[in-house]
Amino acid sequence: MAGKITIKSLFQLNRKNLPKIYTPGVADESLAIYKNPEKVGALTAKSNMIAIVTDGSAVLGLGNLGPEAALPVMEGKSVLFKQLAGINAFPIILNTQKTHEIIATVKTISPSFSGINLEDISAPRCFEIEKKLSDQLDIPVFHDDQHGTAIAVLAGLINASKVSGVDIRKSKIVISGAGAAGIAIANLLLSYGARNIIVFDSKGALCNKRTAGLNIYKYEILKKTNPRNYCGRIENALKSAKIFIGVSVPGVLNREKVKLMEKKPIVFALSNPIPEIERKEAIAGGALIYASGRSDYPNQINNALVFPGIFLGALRSSKKKIDVSLKIKAAQKIAALVAKPRNDKIIPDILDRKVPEAVASAFVS
Amino acid sequence: MAGKITIKSLFQLNRKNLPKIYTPGVADESLAIYKNPEKVGALTAKSNMIAIVTDGSAVLGLGNLGPEAALPVMEGKSVLFKQLAGINAFPIILNTQKTHEIIATVKTISPSFSGINLEDISAPRCFEIEKKLSDQLDIPVFHDDQHGTAIAVLAGLINASKVSGVDIRKSKIVISGAGAAGIAIANLLLSYGARNIIVFDSKGALCNKRTAGLNIYKYEILKKTNPRNYCGRIENALKSAKIFIGVSVPGVLNREKVKLMEKKPIVFALSNPIPEIERKEAIAGGALIYASGRSDYPNQINNALVFPGIFLGALRSSKKKIDVSLKIKAAQKIAALVAKPRNDKIIPDILDRKVPEAVASAFVS
Repeated sequence: MAGKITIKSLFQLNRKNLPKIYTPGVADESLAIYKNPEKVGALTAKSNMIAIVTDGSAVLGLGNLGPEAALPVMEGKSVLFKQLAGINAFPIILNTQKTHEIIATVKTISPSFSGINLEDISAPRCFEIEKKLSDQLDIPVFHDDQHGTAIAVLAGLINASKVSGVDIRKSKIVISGAGAAGIAIANLLLSYGARNIIVFDSKGALCNKRTAGLNIYKYEILKKTNPRNYCGRIENALKSAKIFIGVSVPGVLNREKVKLMEKKPIVFALSNPIPEIERKEAIAGGALIYASGRSDYPNQINNALVFPGIFLGALRSSKKKIDVSLKIKAAQKIAALVAKPRNDKIIPDILDRKVPEAVASAFVS
Repeated sequence: MAGKITIKSLFQLNRKNLPKIYTPGVADESLAIYKNPEKVGALTAKSNMIAIVTDGSAVLGLGNLGPEAALPVMEGKSVLFKQLAGINAFPIILNTQKTHEIIATVKTISPSFSGINLEDISAPRCFEIEKKLSDQLDIPVFHDDQHGTAIAVLAGLINASKVSGVDIRKSKIVISGAGAAGIAIANLLLSYGARNIIVFDSKGALCNKRTAGLNIYKYEILKKTNPRNYCGRIENALKSAKIFIGVSVPGVLNREKVKLMEKKPIVFALSNPIPEIERKEAIAGGALIYASGRSDYPNQINNALVFPGIFLGALRSSKKKIDVSLKIKAAQKIAALVAKPRNDKIIPDILDRKVPEAVASAFVS
């Protein structure tokens, strides 16, 4: 069988089971649900079925490869959902990249599912798509590239601050990347109490003098960041910065630029599959703590730490909106799983089966 | 686990497999598909994945119960697809019953699938939906309630005519029901050579004097049927009829009405889950051959004989349009599986694993 997933029958097809699997047995089930819609949970797979939806516009860090090229990623996430959290997740790939068509389509197919994981949809469309779907559907809607990444980053920073003594709330934080992940990280860190963040896109710092290339989402985040209104290249901003978070492209950082930062900085180089700077280079530049999205380095900051548990919690709970206090709680729960954080151990392993339960517990405590 | 299906991972999630299941391995696969779209077949589950799509407007014979009440039926069909033909079939239930929205939605999600099985969508919308999707998509689109039923009926009639000596082409055939199945059966029997068909809806015969209640599809079939332009109730039409095919509601036929038919008639009472007439009554009325949709009677005429093999053939073949000659061939292949047809054995068992292969072979010979 090709691919990473298959649909398995829960009943063996034989003479005895046939009337249960098919007519006339299903007629009784259909009428039962018609009379009492809540019975859909007990009589179908829906209550544990979510969709992973993409338009293929931002496949990993590779760009707009289109829906079919995104399918291996979606199937891989389906495997993680199942084996980390026991959730059935079906990939839905769309042949449109128009915001209103994506919203309309997801709404129309939504009765099939108990949750919507939006995935690899590029900014700024992803913000409107998530907001409208979340407002209009009564099932959880979660854009993993935004919030999965942001929650994992905050979890890593919480432990990195324990190791290094760096106070997230008082430190200068440079974020490279103003797409889905960059803006969500900035927002979550602000909610956590950070006060000195500068966000960069490919044209430079988001600052008041920028006359072009600011969509409304960049403009909104600009209003809450860059308190000294620094404009210009990343090199100068790195001076006096204690924390670098890259969700952009390889090569943004190098050893020399790390040396410009405050002593013993924290470097999260999360571009995927190739980080903004390689581990060896970052350490050589003086970084005290290095994290990336890669599984072959220590400190893998990856949204796989987050999305299985978020849906596990949401499907169990009556709470269907994933708000900011829940995101902070989830990050704290992940961080707390590392009993004794060290330079090379600030985040749990993404294969640690305790992680999804910890994240899900954010819904109840 | 609730329901009838679950999503199974084809890889065990462990340290060794993780880079293959997730980043960085999926990045290579995504790029490979981006560069060569045909690779989606080898690298994902898509080539063996179809959608079973419904709006819940005509759930079995129970009516417009809505999408969620249709879900047990869809999951049951998924089990049949998997275990009879090895095909992964995922239920998509829609919260719209508007023709253009259904068409737009199915088109938008179509990259996820290699075939579309439309299901339990009421007439007349089902005709336009199937035609437009079939015209606009390059994957097979098959409305099972129309053609699955029609092919199974023709298969049964081919063997019933062998048993009884009745010539389908020369016999008067009364069809009760002018919905999706009734119109598809009439069309397929016409293509097979039948010349004397009268179709009834709930208001009586489709005839030229009818002034109300004829949608364009009923009008189109009227032009090709009812050669003597009989108008009125079914009782009079049953006189001189040799074949009755019910795809309507329980109670349309009874023992007395069967007695009105020509001697030793063929009665297919296919309303589901309760037939137009019970077997005992039909036999008491003189029926030589009785068939129904039920698994607890002999001669189960059921589209489960058809849909697994149709998609099995279509997915294997480059032929993506399921045209009328293919439908007739499929019916003949099903009929030929019964080596020696008898009164109570005109059709193969729906659990007979040879059936899907036989139907699929219609695509190649």
